[in-house]
Amino acid sequence: MQGVARDHVPGWDARLYLKYADERTRPARDLLAQVPIADANLVYDLGCGPGNSTRLLAEHFPRAEIVGIDSSATMLEEARRALPRGAFEQADLANWRPRPADLLFSNAAFQWVPEHLRVLHALAETLPSGGVLAMQIPDNLAEPSQVLIREIAARGTWAERLKRAERARQLIPAPSVYYDLLRPLCRQIDLWHTIYHHVLAGAPAIVEWMKGTGLRPHLAELDSAERQAFLAAYEARLAAAYPALADGRVLLPFPRLFLIAVKN
Amino acid sequence: MQGVARDHVPGWDARLYLKYADERTRPARDLLAQVPIADANLVYDLGCGPGNSTRLLAEHFPRAEIVGIDSSATMLEEARRALPRGAFEQADLANWRPRPADLLFSNAAFQWVPEHLRVLHALAETLPSGGVLAMQIPDNLAEPSQVLIREIAARGTWAERLKRAERARQLIPAPSVYYDLLRPLCRQIDLWHTIYHHVLAGAPAIVEWMKGTGLRPHLAELDSAERQAFLAAYEARLAAAYPALADGRVLLPFPRLFLIAVKN
Repeated sequence: MQGVARDHVPGWDARLYLKYADERTRPARDLLAQVPIADANLVYDLGCGPGNSTRLLAEHFPRAEIVGIDSSATMLEEARRALPRGAFEQADLANWRPRPADLLFSNAAFQWVPEHLRVLHALAETLPSGGVLAMQIPDNLAEPSQVLIREIAARGTWAERLKRAERARQLIPAPSVYYDLLRPLCRQIDLWHTIYHHVLAGAPAIVEWMKGTGLRPHLAELDSAERQAFLAAYEARLAAAYPALADGRVLLPFPRLFLIAVKN
Repeated sequence: MQGVARDHVPGWDARLYLKYADERTRPARDLLAQVPIADANLVYDLGCGPGNSTRLLAEHFPRAEIVGIDSSATMLEEARRALPRGAFEQADLANWRPRPADLLFSNAAFQWVPEHLRVLHALAETLPSGGVLAMQIPDNLAEPSQVLIREIAARGTWAERLKRAERARQLIPAPSVYYDLLRPLCRQIDLWHTIYHHVLAGAPAIVEWMKGTGLRPHLAELDSAERQAFLAAYEARLAAAYPALADGRVLLPFPRLFLIAVKN
């Protein structure tokens, strides 16, 4: 999850985001493993965040020019430090267009992009024949961890203000919608969901996890006392929704949608 | 899916099974990609079937002794032809025990093993410290493709006979059950589901797919006319449950559970 739509979400805390770097990089590795090209000249990392996925791409395509795109200056600063070899550009994916590339790669960014179907279609149009669009986004809005955020947001004195935060996140359509959208342009479309069952220390660890991503738009609208009240209510309800394992930990199921499309 | 429990399921058609070799090998590749060991001396492939997964293991661990285990003589014959380098043994996973191995690998077999939780625990006990148990099983009993089989089975003149077929397939418990089972023996447990959205030509292709696996126990109980009636009813209801994409094809969502455990 990256700071793609900087008009819609508050500044990113790169340190908090990196706390779960291993778990967060796994989807990017899983996506990259299915990209059906062995070599590339030009690769874009769309919504590159602090550069974790950009580093994977640079290792996987050592000869390629790698360009990371993000809307957050803070994230790009972090990315430049982490990967001096990469080129990084600040842009909003909604309107930006790439040069014809071998691979447009995007790990957990498009869920923040308004009308992301239209944008994906426009990006696929820029690909040369055989070029690949590879995308992964969280598809977890039906999970208790997200439903509880919406319920708590709707029932407090903050309800009116948090409506804006609710709108930041785009709904994820069914896989068939992506297929029908891209099929006229693409000769091969590979779609799958993975639900990662993350082992976390308990409900407080789920709160920490969500503070790095799904909770950000909400917390940005609240003052300090409200934040404390919101987080306390959230943690209590998470504890009921995610029962402890025998060793006291919890499993956090986290569904993500993966898409790989090869241009006609 | 392999012929593990040969007392419970009829003979395997290796040719039909191999028809979808690419799609069927993907889960094995995805499982292997997460196995956290770089080298191995002894690797077992439990329920190796015609040797597709065994070949992946042999390529991934070129120095290792690779042993494929299956209950079906037909499958083992096919596997020996496909991979002369491997050793193959006929055995029932319910009672068989391995030598202490670096990796016990199993791709789509344990859903056929009665009391597979007990068996997994017993197998994990045989592992040396740092040894890995890596397993993948279909978790698709709630999918329309499976629910329709059960509905058609329950409502025909064949209902009584097909009860036995219904019992062949074991119910898959929640991920937390595997975690709690293996946690006392294992220092690291990685669990995830992947739902592959397979692109198939249409309802008849879903029938063909299921004939290779989930439908086998049912078809084995029916005479030729009954089979035809069963399959016609199944295809008609599949066509309604899996609406066509814009290009006339269908997406078949196929959920699978993955488990990797590293011994204490």
